[in-house]
Amino acid sequence: MNDFMYHNPTKIEFGREKENNIGQYIKEANIESILLVYGSGSIKKNGLYEKIIASLKTNGISYEELDGVVSNPLLSRVNDGIKIIKEKKIQAVLGVGGGSVADSAKAIAAGAKYDGDVWDFFIHKAEITEALPVFTVMTLAATASEMNGNAVVMNDETKQKYAIASILINPVVSVVNPELMATVSREYLVYSAVDIIAHSIEVYFTATLHPNFNSRIVESIIKTVMETTEVLLENPNDYEARAEFAWIAIQALNGLTPAGTEGGSFPNHMIEHSLSALYNVAHGAGLSVVIPAWMKWYENQNPKQFKRFAKEIFNEEDSSKGIEKLEEWFAKIGAPVSLADVNIPRDGIVELAINANATASMWGIGEMYTVDAIVNILEKA
Amino acid sequence: MNDFMYHNPTKIEFGREKENNIGQYIKEANIESILLVYGSGSIKKNGLYEKIIASLKTNGISYEELDGVVSNPLLSRVNDGIKIIKEKKIQAVLGVGGGSVADSAKAIAAGAKYDGDVWDFFIHKAEITEALPVFTVMTLAATASEMNGNAVVMNDETKQKYAIASILINPVVSVVNPELMATVSREYLVYSAVDIIAHSIEVYFTATLHPNFNSRIVESIIKTVMETTEVLLENPNDYEARAEFAWIAIQALNGLTPAGTEGGSFPNHMIEHSLSALYNVAHGAGLSVVIPAWMKWYENQNPKQFKRFAKEIFNEEDSSKGIEKLEEWFAKIGAPVSLADVNIPRDGIVELAINANATASMWGIGEMYTVDAIVNILEKA
Repeated sequence: MNDFMYHNPTKIEFGREKENNIGQYIKEANIESILLVYGSGSIKKNGLYEKIIASLKTNGISYEELDGVVSNPLLSRVNDGIKIIKEKKIQAVLGVGGGSVADSAKAIAAGAKYDGDVWDFFIHKAEITEALPVFTVMTLAATASEMNGNAVVMNDETKQKYAIASILINPVVSVVNPELMATVSREYLVYSAVDIIAHSIEVYFTATLHPNFNSRIVESIIKTVMETTEVLLENPNDYEARAEFAWIAIQALNGLTPAGTEGGSFPNHMIEHSLSALYNVAHGAGLSVVIPAWMKWYENQNPKQFKRFAKEIFNEEDSSKGIEKLEEWFAKIGAPVSLADVNIPRDGIVELAINANATASMWGIGEMYTVDAIVNILEKA
Repeated sequence: MNDFMYHNPTKIEFGREKENNIGQYIKEANIESILLVYGSGSIKKNGLYEKIIASLKTNGISYEELDGVVSNPLLSRVNDGIKIIKEKKIQAVLGVGGGSVADSAKAIAAGAKYDGDVWDFFIHKAEITEALPVFTVMTLAATASEMNGNAVVMNDETKQKYAIASILINPVVSVVNPELMATVSREYLVYSAVDIIAHSIEVYFTATLHPNFNSRIVESIIKTVMETTEVLLENPNDYEARAEFAWIAIQALNGLTPAGTEGGSFPNHMIEHSLSALYNVAHGAGLSVVIPAWMKWYENQNPKQFKRFAKEIFNEEDSSKGIEKLEEWFAKIGAPVSLADVNIPRDGIVELAINANATASMWGIGEMYTVDAIVNILEKA
């Protein structure tokens, strides 16, 4: 195993009706004012907003609001949030929504304690050394943003979708009530399943050193995603499946799966971010397009692990059969598996590759993922 | 899934030579003085003591020492530590050793902030509301004490081996360098393997609700323990196996495996603590005696999970075959599998059962584990 540091201080409050305690959790952290960040307003329709406000009021927490966070969260909205916080001297950020809301909350928390432009953190011009405490109440399970220090934001001017990572923006407390996730559309359930699988397989396939235990955890996550997704597509109200889905989404990207591996990277995410940025494709939809293509391109780089994947997940001896079966499963649950499926024209590939290569350089994998290589991958999609 | 709260703030510094940074980790927590707790002095022979002292000195951390912690750690020695801390106004506790040293360090940390008798916490007469920060440098992998809030101590007067649990005594930082564990005796490696398996199967078999993902994690741990133990028995210096063994030992009891399960308990530990207390049997040795007996007794209470265990771990269809194979594996690696193997006479069973039943009552499982039931279990051993 590679040397590593593992530290995940986020407290997960998991279960039914825990959102009603959010004010208490915030108060226990000695916080008296928060910026409430949310999305399009569905939380106002389903009653969650009222519950949150009631809990804040009961616990004497004052609040300002920032709504309108979209699926691929925008830097401009993050900046709006930072402005409110600085003006009103707010102590913490509470995101209520899915991954994009959580990510926006985190970016705001980092930017609020920084004098420069928050985008500096995304382009590695500055490092996060301080951040406001972050809390989340999740309404979607996919990104694991509720238990990690990552945030992905899109710069709406430059069309760059970049990420930051710091333990300082790990949520202090995240509420995960699977019941709040039962109303997620079929489409987003599918995208979420793909996203969880993507988080699981990136390091699984790319690490040069991948201990058996790490492989087993990843395989456990993938098996459980596939199993629970199928149950939920049949019955969205199956609490057990919804809860397991929510919990493994967290495990897939909270630092556990890569601990002790060596040399892992996130090429599928890297390429997908360009699909999202240039064509506003939903993250999960972009991933199910990229993953099979990338797997076919990468298979020979790590034949042993691809063989293992085929055997463990699909009980197939042949590694290319494993890729085929995964692609079939994506199609079966209704996830797009080609660029055409998400209305990206063939002649858009080069521009995508140039955009993705810029991210690759930022992530230190630009040598492997040249523009040519990415074109090559995308042509398989 | 059952509702739960998951929170494990311990930072694990995993890898080669990390013990040389312990002074730095302590300093980063703004601590200037510690009580250094260790065992019989083997750390003085192998050079670890010198490294720790050098790191403390480099970072300006003053220290007092408490040595002589034994395998089944004694309350009397814990009280000695508390006395030193109170007299010298020490700010934190550093345990350097195995589980018994870490547990003693934790009990000392809790007792140092309490005016009454620290044993009050063990008999549930008082609750831990404050504790000194704990740090550990581990030389043995088994108990996961390095990443949980548990501590087991034996009252040398009353012969009770009881436990405390509080997040307040979770170590702040634990150093886990697998190389420091390479000199562990063959005997203790085997006991450790048994202990890890015991931690894994307790809730696995006893929970009334045990989600598939939790089962898969447990099975991943058990498979990896068996695999790495066999490698280490052949070659104690195999770093990869040693490292995986150390990491899964932690995963087996850091709160991950039971999260979301319902109704789990620790009957094997409960009974074993009496073997340790009355016959000074090593914890792992007692466990390998108790486990197969308990499994045979309990099998019919959870046939589905026993069948799953047999299939997943040993590829056997019949659940009793799973128990048999585990017992065979214990014997194969040299772990005792009968009371006779650890020199406990048949006529000692009733006294053991009475002692264990007292623990059972303390742990809220006294109704199921009556004296008669425990006699019944031990007769199978």
